[in-house]
Amino acid sequence: ASDTVSNDAPHRRFNPLKGEWVLVSPHRNKRPWSGQQEKTAGVEKPEFDPGCYLCPGNTRNNGVVNDSYTGPWVFDNDFPALLSDSPEGGTTGDPLFRAANVRGTARVMCFSERHDLTLPELPVSEIRKVVDVWAGQIEELGAQYDWVALFENKGVVMGCSQPHPHGQIWASDFLPNEVTREDECQKRHLEEIGNVLLVEYAASESQKQERIVVENDDWLAVVPWWAVWPFETLVMPRRHVLRLPDLTEAERDGLADILKRLCTRYDNLFETEFPYTMGWHGAPTREGRWDHWQLHAHFYPPLLRSATVRKFMVGYEMLSEAQRDLTAEQAAERLRGLSDVHYKQGGA
Amino acid sequence: ASDTVSNDAPHRRFNPLKGEWVLVSPHRNKRPWSGQQEKTAGVEKPEFDPGCYLCPGNTRNNGVVNDSYTGPWVFDNDFPALLSDSPEGGTTGDPLFRAANVRGTARVMCFSERHDLTLPELPVSEIRKVVDVWAGQIEELGAQYDWVALFENKGVVMGCSQPHPHGQIWASDFLPNEVTREDECQKRHLEEIGNVLLVEYAASESQKQERIVVENDDWLAVVPWWAVWPFETLVMPRRHVLRLPDLTEAERDGLADILKRLCTRYDNLFETEFPYTMGWHGAPTREGRWDHWQLHAHFYPPLLRSATVRKFMVGYEMLSEAQRDLTAEQAAERLRGLSDVHYKQGGA
Ligand SMILES: O=P(O)(O)O[C@H]1O[C@H](CO)[C@@H](O)[C@H](O)[C@H]1O
Ligand SMILES: O=P(O)(O)O[C@H]1O[C@H](CO)[C@@H](O)[C@H](O)[C@H]1O
Repeated sequence: ASDTVSNDAPHRRFNPLKGEWVLVSPHRNKRPWSGQQEKTAGVEKPEFDPGCYLCPGNTRNNGVVNDSYTGPWVFDNDFPALLSDSPEGGTTGDPLFRAANVRGTARVMCFSERHDLTLPELPVSEIRKVVDVWAGQIEELGAQYDWVALFENKGVVMGCSQPHPHGQIWASDFLPNEVTREDECQKRHLEEIGNVLLVEYAASESQKQERIVVENDDWLAVVPWWAVWPFETLVMPRRHVLRLPDLTEAERDGLADILKRLCTRYDNLFETEFPYTMGWHGAPTREGRWDHWQLHAHFYPPLLRSATVRKFMVGYEMLSEAQRDLTAEQAAERLRGLSDVHYKQGGA
Repeated sequence: ASDTVSNDAPHRRFNPLKGEWVLVSPHRNKRPWSGQQEKTAGVEKPEFDPGCYLCPGNTRNNGVVNDSYTGPWVFDNDFPALLSDSPEGGTTGDPLFRAANVRGTARVMCFSERHDLTLPELPVSEIRKVVDVWAGQIEELGAQYDWVALFENKGVVMGCSQPHPHGQIWASDFLPNEVTREDECQKRHLEEIGNVLLVEYAASESQKQERIVVENDDWLAVVPWWAVWPFETLVMPRRHVLRLPDLTEAERDGLADILKRLCTRYDNLFETEFPYTMGWHGAPTREGRWDHWQLHAHFYPPLLRSATVRKFMVGYEMLSEAQRDLTAEQAAERLRGLSDVHYKQGGA
């Protein structure tokens, strides 16, 4: 994959989107594992669960009754980390004790009324509705806030506290760390190299093919050159697009298709509901010039070797640098080789 | 704690050592938890376990027989992420596909021959031996490598794969991301403000007292102003010290004392072997001017509300910004109120 760097020996790769490195140790994947084993979902879930806080028509903890919804449904988070009416401004003078008040809001988005169907188990037409609601939320909350975080924590191992398939929406009057970092890196790339980082990257990966998992006319999903998580992927449009609401009808259909195929492969890899954190990064909704941005989604899945053996990002990773045990190319090859038909729906 | 920022409302705090923010949502700690519950250690461990790969005299997976050691014992990791003989140099020309070969080594350090005693359960005199071996490893490996990472992953929830209390040592011919970031921040602080960031910070916290957990003549452990993990702490000497080998005899004794008391309080908090990742950051061992550095240890423990309910750093945290549910001051107060006597040894 590179001129002078061996893919079989320990090496570092650079992530130009975050401006940091990852340590790759391909020879280390063989070590035995006697540490923690994750639980697997196992139990068959009903279409509707009368005890679920997120199913249509049920009463939540705080006494509020859910809409009798079908398709995606958005409501205010009962325990929001951000509040719309907190005090504004403010910081201390001491550079070692800086603080700032913040405002924001948090919502929950059920993907559909079905308690038992995760994103890849929904038909493409239903996933398309999720795409439209995502775009609508960015539009609505983006009019008021600087940043709208759209994400999904999938699986108990990723801190998901409700089994009904859902994502979250947190909007804030500030740009969070990760956004600031990507903003700086993309800005510098445009200034120094003269093109949009992820548009150039998508074109380059499309040509090289070796890290592609799935692609269609408008989208591609790759295990990025700088992937940290074992089966991490990056989903990007081919066209230069700043934010979800800017997608054309055809691009929205294409996105539903790519998500269906990518997440189906994830589930097929270990025949499990593949846990992950995924989320969208588009240009901030704060006023300003954001031409250096390209819309993209990150998928960060923790599983490494089976439905029960995950990668831990702990000691060395937390205190020194992220480290991975198989190359991005190996991961892409594994995912590419899987079926587009979900194992629960007759494939694998 | 600050002039204009309310400690009860959502706010952000700035981490000057990493140059990034953390979102604090003090009102959010009340939410119910129906997500994943961690397993607790539970079972009584024997002093010596004939089936343990790390106990003295036992044979490891690869057929090597362990020394019949007492006290701390260091040996080469059987599955090192870094190798001393990998190819050198190299990168591609394309800025989107950069890579570099790396060299290094990885070792394991059993804290003592006792299979059943974690760090805080050892007598201070035994912890002092651990301190000396840490210093010796920095000295030995630092002569050859640019960075020596000393860390401990404690507990299965932190990816620890062997129950025998141990830490790890990874040395490399490069400065990892986290080190580079701390280096830049400390350097800028010295240049712009004129003093050593963490020396000034320790003096300031010592005066304020509200975030101190334990202190003695030479050391203090605080929940830093910018803590991310619920009960995260930062351990610092009062004197300006670049690296572990530079500590005086008295400071080494003081460090053993502080570690004993800090980790005892951690265990007493939820009456469990408190899991964490901890590790040392001292000035790099690469040649250069490092006066802006101050030696310190980070403790990153995941538990939030009990021995089984942890904080998950997932969706928002991975893709936007770290978020915490109780203030640093609240966490420090909880830890400060606990006994210095270990619950297994008659305290709590
Ligand atoms: O070497 P161990 O203890 O088996 O492995 C543990 O620590 C390493 C260093 O932090 C991590 O890379 C691994 O993911 C973790 O499971
Ligand atoms: O709001 P939830 O789903 O209960 O909580 C989950 O997602 C949040 C946002 O990523 C995290 O802050 C929590 O730690 C996690 O458990």
